[in-house]
Amino acid sequence: MSNTVKRLAVLGSTGSIGQQTLDVVRALPHRFRIVGLAAGKNVALLSKQIDEFKPSFIYYQGKKTQTQLANGDYELLSLEQIVSHPQVDTVVIATSGKSGLSPTLAAVKAGKTVALANKESLVMAGELITREAKRNKARILPIDSEHSAIWQCLRGENQEAAKLILTASGGPFLGCLPAQLEEISTKQALKHPSWQMGKKVTIDSATLMNKGLEVIEAHWLFNVPFDNIQVLIHPQSIIHSMVEFTDGSVKALLSHPDMRLPIQYALSYPERLHNPHLPRLNWNAINKLTFEQPDLDTFPCLKLAIEAGRKGDTYPTVLCASDEIAVELFLSQRIRFTDIAYLVKRVLEQHQSIANPTLEEIMVADAWARQKVQELVGASTC
Amino acid sequence: MSNTVKRLAVLGSTGSIGQQTLDVVRALPHRFRIVGLAAGKNVALLSKQIDEFKPSFIYYQGKKTQTQLANGDYELLSLEQIVSHPQVDTVVIATSGKSGLSPTLAAVKAGKTVALANKESLVMAGELITREAKRNKARILPIDSEHSAIWQCLRGENQEAAKLILTASGGPFLGCLPAQLEEISTKQALKHPSWQMGKKVTIDSATLMNKGLEVIEAHWLFNVPFDNIQVLIHPQSIIHSMVEFTDGSVKALLSHPDMRLPIQYALSYPERLHNPHLPRLNWNAINKLTFEQPDLDTFPCLKLAIEAGRKGDTYPTVLCASDEIAVELFLSQRIRFTDIAYLVKRVLEQHQSIANPTLEEIMVADAWARQKVQELVGASTC
Repeated sequence: MSNTVKRLAVLGSTGSIGQQTLDVVRALPHRFRIVGLAAGKNVALLSKQIDEFKPSFIYYQGKKTQTQLANGDYELLSLEQIVSHPQVDTVVIATSGKSGLSPTLAAVKAGKTVALANKESLVMAGELITREAKRNKARILPIDSEHSAIWQCLRGENQEAAKLILTASGGPFLGCLPAQLEEISTKQALKHPSWQMGKKVTIDSATLMNKGLEVIEAHWLFNVPFDNIQVLIHPQSIIHSMVEFTDGSVKALLSHPDMRLPIQYALSYPERLHNPHLPRLNWNAINKLTFEQPDLDTFPCLKLAIEAGRKGDTYPTVLCASDEIAVELFLSQRIRFTDIAYLVKRVLEQHQSIANPTLEEIMVADAWARQKVQELVGASTC
Repeated sequence: MSNTVKRLAVLGSTGSIGQQTLDVVRALPHRFRIVGLAAGKNVALLSKQIDEFKPSFIYYQGKKTQTQLANGDYELLSLEQIVSHPQVDTVVIATSGKSGLSPTLAAVKAGKTVALANKESLVMAGELITREAKRNKARILPIDSEHSAIWQCLRGENQEAAKLILTASGGPFLGCLPAQLEEISTKQALKHPSWQMGKKVTIDSATLMNKGLEVIEAHWLFNVPFDNIQVLIHPQSIIHSMVEFTDGSVKALLSHPDMRLPIQYALSYPERLHNPHLPRLNWNAINKLTFEQPDLDTFPCLKLAIEAGRKGDTYPTVLCASDEIAVELFLSQRIRFTDIAYLVKRVLEQHQSIANPTLEEIMVADAWARQKVQELVGASTC
């Protein structure tokens, strides 16, 4: 085990998590090899990555011809071909939003180990994906710092968690009054106090929708009922989450907030590797860790997400889809920050959920929710 | 495994840890049975314990006749007979001070599982005890909250700790100036802010000697060099210690400060059991956890202990022995609080250490140190 080289396919290689995944590989070239890269529209960065990591196959979403890409001895494959390719040991799903769902499902059906950063997959299709993973003996290893923390805390324990305590930084608007959030600019919302992340997840962190999606994800990953998952605001982002066991002991996982650490853990598991580039906690500089309860009036998205998770069926899909469109509209300055929660709430209220949905039914609910948000915004007479 | 009843012998059953061990057994009678009890001079309490737990054998240190003890169908045995008795699965060493050493060694030589609360055993004879444990396939399971925390954090990890972070409440005199400590009364020193413990360990907590002994104990239990063991003041006593791994991840073990939890974990390991009497952390009430570096000028005992641990040989024995006598002298109001560190330092300075000591040589060093403290106090002309 200890000297094998793991072969990785990275989906979303030009995004934030994708780039940090390649950082880890760059630091530990004797342990990991990139065999597949898949990206969206950032052809310039993908070209550089091809030059550096020399993958065997790539996927590229843009319509421009291959001539724009770096030269190299690689094949152009579909996402589905990449995630099920026999040369791939671990598939890293580093895309954000709905686009992660179908490659995640394909990777799981191919029995691959999936290092999952895309939370929408499990939120939209948690029951389906976990069932297929079980059936095909695929492992889903979380990359999200909170879920990685919980997974690490459960390591070696021979029982399930009695309770999960998901920590949240609280985002840039912790302590604001509800009315103050109406005037928030996109620039303010994109400035996260402790984490460097992509735009979508940064806005979701500012609304606390991100934490709500994580609660649903944790429910599926760790088989813990919603009643036993608590969200706790912890602005320093040093404790990444905690697990309470049946005897009352609580384990916590702490580190400097740097996504490369949970990424590396998912890639190297069950080993832990020394990486000189990863920062360490300095206890001479840490004076206090603080905690408070989340404010559900100022941050209604958290409540909406947990409610949608409890209801299940296609509600979480509608939550995700309406949030994705609402965040896009906010980023393009067509709606206000507080409209995100308003729109998600309205769309959820109007949704007619379908029990035990198939992938097709999930996709229909997704499309319906996206259109519904656009309709509500379009119909606004203000 | 899950339905067997573990048979316990508790040495020091009338002390603080002993009584809390019996509390755990009382709460979980279907999992644990007391087969042996050993106590010092508290015959009244031992009699009550015999009545309640009906042990098969007992040891009683006092010289009074057996007629004072409760009636019952029990044998009077020596400590050595008790810890090696075939009916005993786990020996709980709940005595404090030097008296724990020889029964610990006997239990380890008998290949028993030893739940160890007595820190002096490992401090005085760490090399000897760990070697004998290995040879006789005996397991030493820590009961001290800090070492239990480290042990729990290491659970399921396939590598040793890169660094141990031992937390310390700081005791009742955290933040005091050195000169202020000269006027401390025994009553003030016996009032620990977060833990209910015996007198000796409470005074050792006030001087931080206790933390120094724990550093030495941790060195032996977890095979970590002194350079990689850090002491961190954490007044709330919620985080009981932490382990840093090679990748920079840090695991922490948290709970309400209640010794019954680490006691129960050592007894029930590898299981965790639900005990309705154990308090749980309430995150609605915890606003902050604070940390600071220990003040080695105000609390020189911590520095003395770590230095003695580094030097090894019979230095740790002399540290323990001189501290034990100095604490007794302070409790009987014959010396001041700050004299404890002074006396320990003087005795260590005058000690001629013996390399790789045998048990006999350890006992000689112990007796020398005890006498030396008395001499220094007796020779004082003030």
